[in-house]
Parts: sequence; C-alpha cells; structure tokens
Amino acid sequence: MSKIFVGDYSLEQVGKTVTVQGWVANIRDHGKLAFIELRDRAGILQVFVDESSADFDMVHELKRESIIEVTGLLVERDAKFVNHHLKSGQVELKAEKIKLISQSKDLPFELDAYSHTGDEIRQKYRYLDLRREKMTSNIMLRHKVTTAIREYLNSESFVDIETPYLTKSTPEGARDFLVPSRLQKNQFYALPQSPQMLKQLLMGAGFDRYYQIVRCFRDEDLRGDRQPEFTQVDLEMSFVKQEDIQNLVESMLKEVVKKSKGIEIEDKFPEISYDEAMTRFGSDKPDTRFGLELVDLTEIEKDSKILFITKALKEKNGSIQAINLPQGSGKFSNKELGNIKQAMMEFGITSFATAPVEDGIISGGMKSTFKESNAQVLQALDAKDGDLIFFVTGRKDKVQQALGALRLRLAKKLDLIDPTKLNFLWVTDWPLLEYNEEEGRYQAMHHPFTQATVGSADELKASPETVKSYAYDIVLNGYEIGGGSLRIHERDMQEAMFQLLGMDASDYERDFGFFLEALEYGFPPHGGLALGLDRLVMLLAGEENIREVMAFPKNGVGRDLMLESPSSVDEYQLSDLNIALK
Amino acid sequence: MSKIFVGDYSLEQVGKTVTVQGWVANIRDHGKLAFIELRDRAGILQVFVDESSADFDMVHELKRESIIEVTGLLVERDAKFVNHHLKSGQVELKAEKIKLISQSKDLPFELDAYSHTGDEIRQKYRYLDLRREKMTSNIMLRHKVTTAIREYLNSESFVDIETPYLTKSTPEGARDFLVPSRLQKNQFYALPQSPQMLKQLLMGAGFDRYYQIVRCFRDEDLRGDRQPEFTQVDLEMSFVKQEDIQNLVESMLKEVVKKSKGIEIEDKFPEISYDEAMTRFGSDKPDTRFGLELVDLTEIEKDSKILFITKALKEKNGSIQAINLPQGSGKFSNKELGNIKQAMMEFGITSFATAPVEDGIISGGMKSTFKESNAQVLQALDAKDGDLIFFVTGRKDKVQQALGALRLRLAKKLDLIDPTKLNFLWVTDWPLLEYNEEEGRYQAMHHPFTQATVGSADELKASPETVKSYAYDIVLNGYEIGGGSLRIHERDMQEAMFQLLGMDASDYERDFGFFLEALEYGFPPHGGLALGLDRLVMLLAGEENIREVMAFPKNGVGRDLMLESPSSVDEYQLSDLNIALK
Repeated sequence: MSKIFVGDYSLEQVGKTVTVQGWVANIRDHGKLAFIELRDRAGILQVFVDESSADFDMVHELKRESIIEVTGLLVERDAKFVNHHLKSGQVELKAEKIKLISQSKDLPFELDAYSHTGDEIRQKYRYLDLRREKMTSNIMLRHKVTTAIREYLNSESFVDIETPYLTKSTPEGARDFLVPSRLQKNQFYALPQSPQMLKQLLMGAGFDRYYQIVRCFRDEDLRGDRQPEFTQVDLEMSFVKQEDIQNLVESMLKEVVKKSKGIEIEDKFPEISYDEAMTRFGSDKPDTRFGLELVDLTEIEKDSKILFITKALKEKNGSIQAINLPQGSGKFSNKELGNIKQAMMEFGITSFATAPVEDGIISGGMKSTFKESNAQVLQALDAKDGDLIFFVTGRKDKVQQALGALRLRLAKKLDLIDPTKLNFLWVTDWPLLEYNEEEGRYQAMHHPFTQATVGSADELKASPETVKSYAYDIVLNGYEIGGGSLRIHERDMQEAMFQLLGMDASDYERDFGFFLEALEYGFPPHGGLALGLDRLVMLLAGEENIREVMAFPKNGVGRDLMLESPSSVDEYQLSDLNIALK
Repeated sequence: MSKIFVGDYSLEQVGKTVTVQGWVANIRDHGKLAFIELRDRAGILQVFVDESSADFDMVHELKRESIIEVTGLLVERDAKFVNHHLKSGQVELKAEKIKLISQSKDLPFELDAYSHTGDEIRQKYRYLDLRREKMTSNIMLRHKVTTAIREYLNSESFVDIETPYLTKSTPEGARDFLVPSRLQKNQFYALPQSPQMLKQLLMGAGFDRYYQIVRCFRDEDLRGDRQPEFTQVDLEMSFVKQEDIQNLVESMLKEVVKKSKGIEIEDKFPEISYDEAMTRFGSDKPDTRFGLELVDLTEIEKDSKILFITKALKEKNGSIQAINLPQGSGKFSNKELGNIKQAMMEFGITSFATAPVEDGIISGGMKSTFKESNAQVLQALDAKDGDLIFFVTGRKDKVQQALGALRLRLAKKLDLIDPTKLNFLWVTDWPLLEYNEEEGRYQAMHHPFTQATVGSADELKASPETVKSYAYDIVLNGYEIGGGSLRIHERDMQEAMFQLLGMDASDYERDFGFFLEALEYGFPPHGGLALGLDRLVMLLAGEENIREVMAFPKNGVGRDLMLESPSSVDEYQLSDLNIALK
C-alpha cells in the first residue's frame, strides 16, 4: 500500500482528521494566524493555524526547513484561495496540534527555485539541495525510468544478473580505477569500465537474455557530462539479428518515455548510416530537432578557378562544403563571425567564409567566387534572399566535423531547437576500425568484440579500413545515449580482430585467453547494447549535466564535496596493502 | 512478449513447425535414428532425427555442448515415452533441418547433476558450470527474488536511489578496499561497506522511503559464506516506529518466498529478544527448526558440593548449563565425544561432560555428581531414559556460545533439521554496545548510528553497558539474513555515541563532521534495515555457500579463477596513481 504524502492530499481526504509530518518550506506569520507550507517529497500542503490551537505560540519560533508533525482536519479551500500550482491546492489542513520534531538552524543557501546557488555549495550540502523541488523530481524521474526499464525487460524474458565490481585490468579502452588486493600481494583488481566480456560469457552460459543496471567506472579527465562512475543499462541477447535488438530497445525506450513522461512516441525511430550522419550533419550523433544540414559543393566547384577552392580540392579528400542559415543575414556582428572563424579553424580546416544572399545571388566578399556556379550553389543549399551561407574548405572529415560543430552553434544562437522534442535516431553501419594516426595503428570504433559484416577472418584482414560492422548507436537530441553491436562468437574472428588492433598472440592470450577458450565450447551468436542511464534521464529531465540526475555526484576533479572524498588514509592501511606513496 | 524457450515447449505448440536453437546436452545415436536432448536455460527438449532428414549424417559428428538450430514439427509423444521429469516431456521435435551453429570441443568436466567437480575447475570454467541445471536455476531464482523485492517496495512508495561506489574510508567497521585517486594525488576513495550514512542523508533530503539493491565491499579474511563483494537490499524509512519497519520487511519476505518458491507463510514471524536467544539457543541467530535448547542448571546446582561445579559457580557469572539429546545415548563413539569436548574447550569453558539417562537417573560417570539434584535436573531438561545430556560449566556467555555451537553440531549429526522448513525469526532488544576486552573500549553492537532506548545523552552515558537499542535482526534457519535499527537523528545523541566509542571531538569531526551538521537542518526520525541478498537466495536455493548463487564469485583468497584477477599491472599505471609497491 503506497503512502499518502502531504503533497498528495486532495479533495478525496476532505473531512478527515489526519496526522502528517513534513518540512516547513515557508511560514506566513500574521500574528494571530499563520499559514505554513508543509513539504515532503510529493509537494506542499498548506497548514492553517490560529490562536485556537494550543501550540500556536510555537509557530512564531519555527524556522524554515524544520520538521513538524501536524494533526488537524483536512478542509476544502474557498474557491478564491485555490492554488492551481499545487496538487493539494484545493485543500488545506486546519491544525489542531503541532509538534516540533526537528528544528533547523539557518540554511547555507535558499532552496526555492529562483535562487542561483553555486555548484560547490550545492554539492557540499547535497542533502539540502536534494530537497529542492527540481532535484527531488529528477531523482524520482530516475526511479521511474529504471522501473520502466526493468518491467519491460522482465516481461521480455530478460534475467537480471549481477557481475563483479572487483574485476581485471585490461589494456584496451580507457584508464582503469585500480584496487590493490591485500590477500594477493602486489596484485590489483580493476573496477569495470563495462561488464562487456562477462555479459558475453553469460551468453556462453546459456542465459540467452541478460540485463543489468550496473555501475561503470572510467578514470578519465572529467568533462561536463562525465563522472568517474556512471550507470549503464546493459543488455545482451543470443540467437538474434541486429534488427531484433534495435526493435527491442526501441520498444523499451518508448515504454520508458510513456511511463516516465507520459509521452507516446508512435513513429518508428529514424535510422541513418554513420556515413549519412557524417555527410548530412557532420556528427555521428546528430541532433535532428533542426535542419541546417551540411551541403557538399565539391562536385559543383570541381572546375572552379578560384585559388582557395582549387588549392583545397587538389588535396587528398579535399572538399568544399557549406551550411545555409535561413534569414541569417545581419544577425551576426563581425566579432561574432570572428569568434566562429576562430572556432572553425581549430578543427584543422583550411578556410572559412560567410556570404549573405542578396538579390538572388551570393553576395558580399564571395560575389565573384561563385559567379560561375551561383545558381547551382543556391539550389544545392536551398538558399534565398536574407540567408547567410557558411563556407568551409579542407579535408573532408575535418570539414564535416567543423560544420557539425557550427551547425549546433548556429541552432543555439538562433534558438532553433524545440526543447520539448524527443528526437531518437539510430546510427548504423559503423566502420569496424578507425586508424589512430598518433599511435600508428587501428583501433576499434566500438570495441574489440564487435562483429564485422564480412564472413571470414581473411576478408577482414584483406581490407580493414573499409570493413563495416554490425554496430548501432541510439542517439537522443544530439547525445549518444547508447551503443551496441552484434559480437564476435568465433575464436578465429576474435583472434583476427585482436591482431588487427596490433596485439600479438602472447598479448591477447595473457589478457583474453580465458575468453578465447570460452568461444570454443559451443558459443551462441549474440549481441546487445548498453544505454547510458544518466544521460537518458538527464535528457528526459531537461537538464544539461548528469550531475543533476545523480544523488551524490562528484565535481569536475572527481571530488565528493560532501563526504570530502577522496581523502588521505592512515599509513597502516597502505602498509596492509603493501603499497606506498611515491 | 516473453520468449518461448526450448525447455518450455508443451502440448500447446503441438502441430506447429518451429525453429529453435540450443545446446546439445546429450545424443543417443542409434545409427539410423537419433535422439538429441536440446537444452537452453528453461530445460530440455527431445529432438528426434532419422535418415529422412538431409542433415542426418552431421548428427554423428555432433559433440555434446555444441549449439544447433533445429527446424521441425512439434509432435506429441506416445504415452509410453512421456518423460515426467521434463516440462517438455509430453512432446518432441521431429527434425527436418539441423544446422550446426557452434561445435564444442571436449569439455573439461561433466555438466550433469551427478558429477562432482572441484570448486577450482568450476570457477575457472564458470560459463560452463553455469550451464548446469542447478546453477542456472539458482541464478534464475536470484532474479525472481530481486524482482519480487523491487515490486513490493515500489508498491510501498519506496524510491530506488543509487549511491556512489567511490566513497570515503572511515575508521569504524571492517577493513576498506581502497581506490587510489589519480586526479587527487595521494588520496584514496574507499569502496562502501554499506551506504549507511548516505541512505540516512537521503532521509534528511526528504525521500522518506529509500531502497537500493547495492553491492558492498569488505576486505576481510574470507570464510565459507563470505565474499569480498556481496549484495545488500538496503532500505530506510522516515517517521516510523520499529514495528512499522519489521512489519514491512516481514510482508516483503513473505511476498518473496511466495513469488520465488510458491510457499505461503501465514503466521507472523516469531520474535525473541537477544537475551532470550542467547539463553535458549546460545546464539544471536538461532536455528529454530529443531529443539535442543540450552537449560541453565545454575540455580538448581547452587548448593552443589561437587568440586568442579562449586569452582565454576564461584567465578563471576559462573554457570552450569546443559543440553539434553533425546535418545542420544549410545549414538557417539568415545572418539566423537573426544572431538566434541575438544571443540567445546576452544570456547573457553572450564569443563564439559556427558551423561546418559538410565533407569530414570543421570548415569555413567556423572551418577554421583547429580545424586542430590537428579529429579530437578531431569525435569529441567525434560530428560528420559535413553537420552544423552551434555553438561558445560564456565562463564555464562562462554557456556552459551559453546552450547550454541554444540546444539547445531548435534542437530546435524542426528539429522534433526527439516531442510524444507523456512524458519524466519526476529531477534530484538539488542544491547547498544559491547565491551571489547582486547581494545579496552566499547564498540557498537550494530553500528554507531543505532538509537538507544534511552531518551537523552546523559542517560546513555550513565550506563552504557546496560543500555538497549532499537535494533533488530532477521534470522532465517540459523543465518542472520538482515539487520536494522532506528537511527540517531539528533546531533547530541550522535556525539554522545561517538564519545562512548572512544572518539574525541577532533576524530569524529574529521570523519563524520558533515554528517553531524546534516542532523541540524531538520532531520526526520528514521530507521531501516539491510538484507544480505546472497544469503537469502542461498537459503531459498537450499545451498550452503553464497558462491552457488553468484554468477562470478571469488575463491577463498579473493581470486577470480576465470578472469585471473587480481593481477599485476603495468608500472605506468601505478606511476599515474603516484603509488609504488613496497
């Protein structure tokens, strides 16, 4: 039986005498009568108290955020006093008895929605920060989301299986958090970056459909939406095709959105290939809530006589591309355009220019540049008078990246994004490998367990740079919220993959030998996906940082400001572990 | 829509042509026809194949544990071939097409229920071990248990909230696992032993009802049912009395037993005090599936003239106690009794003796000892001819412990325990503190956040050794499966508690300052409980080690024999963390 919270009271309970507890969110003390806004996790209930109550004097001493217990009659409010902003706005509690349960001292910051409080102080007093309506509702939303996920997956025969957190350090991937072992001197556990191999082994064990909502750890330098620990909805299925997994995840996400936000998404999620995403949006996680697509002018301009264009197109993969901003002309100061140019150049492109469309032609400084190709360029860009065109030249991949970033910047600047939209998108047909120029070797675009679309190890080795994979990302509003793939389930393919990644047999036998052997005892074809729970909830909550949907997050350098963690430890603790500070 | 697994097929699907995948559990190859036992997580389906199938030749090459895909007609078996041991025993699949998906090499051990395989090899090839029917069903049971828990708590307005795993080392409690921080040089996170303070802070934040199924970590020397990481069902409630929490947990456990095992427990769980548990059973977690209760003969024997008794009773808290084993006479060899005596003496008791009851009196070597008190002793013990009485003298607490252990040993030896029983028991009214003789200070019987039954810090300090607490353990079949308490929610009480535990203000301000401050901003009265999920599932599964209900457990010295973890790491990894091996 669920509890009736003070914020839940409504006309249904009118006429009842009830005893409730809650926090004093506010007091309007009129001397002979007072109104108390009593709060709990569900919201606010107005308490009315006057001199007829024996405890009335105490009300004058009450501080905000103190806890009281009130016994009284729940009455209907006069129509003119109904508060439509509150669930309980049609009723109020006429206090007969008020008991002080816990007096609060003065708060370090205000808890109302309007006060802007620094992140540091919010984190230090997180237990106060979480009392704010927005934070309470974010944490409740997270619970609704995980509950909807579990209910959906349980109904689809998935088994929730816990995998260990004290696991093994492997050289692939990001930096591991290490845990020194005391019983196994000079050896270390690693906290998992994901339970990838373990969930695959559960497929080998025959569980067929596995999931886990599981903490993952990466010791990276932190950015806005990164935390050293984060939560993944991890799932894996056997005997399935890529579309089976995509369909399942799509249905699950629709359920989640419906149950947590009350929004029904009926259309199938659009799906585009990685190449198309890069070509049209300059991003592998495009935000499709607005247009401003990239237009490749290379073909149109291939015979151009203009020096900066001929120079750019002469290079390998040289390219000229543009974005048209409808009615963008005159919306930017020279300083702003200078800043944009500056940001563009950091992507390694060779030139950047803007041009307004006037009197049906590309105008301004670019007038002569496109004299020959005016009509074709305008048509390709669907550009009209008053538009502003952004041109970029350089190596195709760099141009795409630069324009992908520009596209987002322009949309934000001109407020082109509808924040109520939830645009899910599948990005598929990923390359299996990418070449890491710094390290002079291939690395896995997803991870080393991803299955190539070719059928044999020989084919894979013959053309590693063009091989595609059965990998798929799920994108929401320009954020990658999940990624998955069919996995390799044959030893020879897995060995070929390790070799392509630059490992020799002694390397991969040491780190992955047990896994390779497992593939030889009857291993099913399988695949799966991992969703970033924090990001998904962040987007559903309309937040811009995953900290806002975590109860106790860490700051930008990995500190918990409330616990004061990490902290120095006693010498004997290190000595027990046989380690020393350097 | 749930998946139909091969083990699920039944008369319902007869007449359908189906395509299924599974593992070859067994083949009976009769040359011109063959029966394949096809297995997946739900069980076995018999596949019949004969020369009419184009793929028949391949069947002769099939190895056990290979994966095949079979397409064929599901038919009803002849009545005489029905297998009542299988869910699918009334049907079989007449194979039309068989495809080999993954051939297995020879197995390192047999997967049938009868083979006894060493723990080491089972762990090394855990993905094979998990294919065994018993292991699959244990993991599925665990899923059913956690699902039932979540469904129950969700329906009771609990919110699932994740707390961090990278947290702070505190000196109280067991040894922490430490995680060196790279970004905060020379500082360490600790993996949580439980989210105790964080869940209390969530009460301070107003969430009112919290739960989490959460991993906990203790770096202890391992024993049979201990693992370095284990899972806790952690819950906390605000504005409640002890009985509210007990009632809720009791209803939850009844739901769990019903949904996971189909067993309805109607009676209220019995409840006894800690003192009564120690007095009657010599244990704070009594197994009540059998009798053999302790009987204190001290009062009866207070005027005894027998030297070993007078000597024992002269000591502070001196005591003579006994257990009567009905019809135990003649069931033990002298060697066995010697072993028992040996084990008893290790508890620090001063004497141990046994005596049979013959011709209505205590007989054997004890005949003269109880000459005066024969009738009283026999009556107190409810002893009859043929019974065997075990007498112990010494300090009362040591005698209780010794007889508590003896009681279990006798019950096992004489097979007095009904393994089908699920005897839940509340143990309440715990002492707040216990005196640690080695360290010469008090320590918390539960933990330092437990609320005493006295109302003020002064009362608490006046008689710390006799103060009881609002603490309660839930016991199942002699295992503590959970413990909880009402918590301190007032700063002065919490400080008094820290002081009693031997901390001075600078100690507790450093480690718990943030928590003490939190208590000053309107903190609700609250309490909760933590269940050991592994133990609960172990007992419901009828297992004797929690390893049997964990997918990837560690061995007795904390090693994962499959992953080969912990392992040595590269020098640069340590260097990044600014630590070195000693």
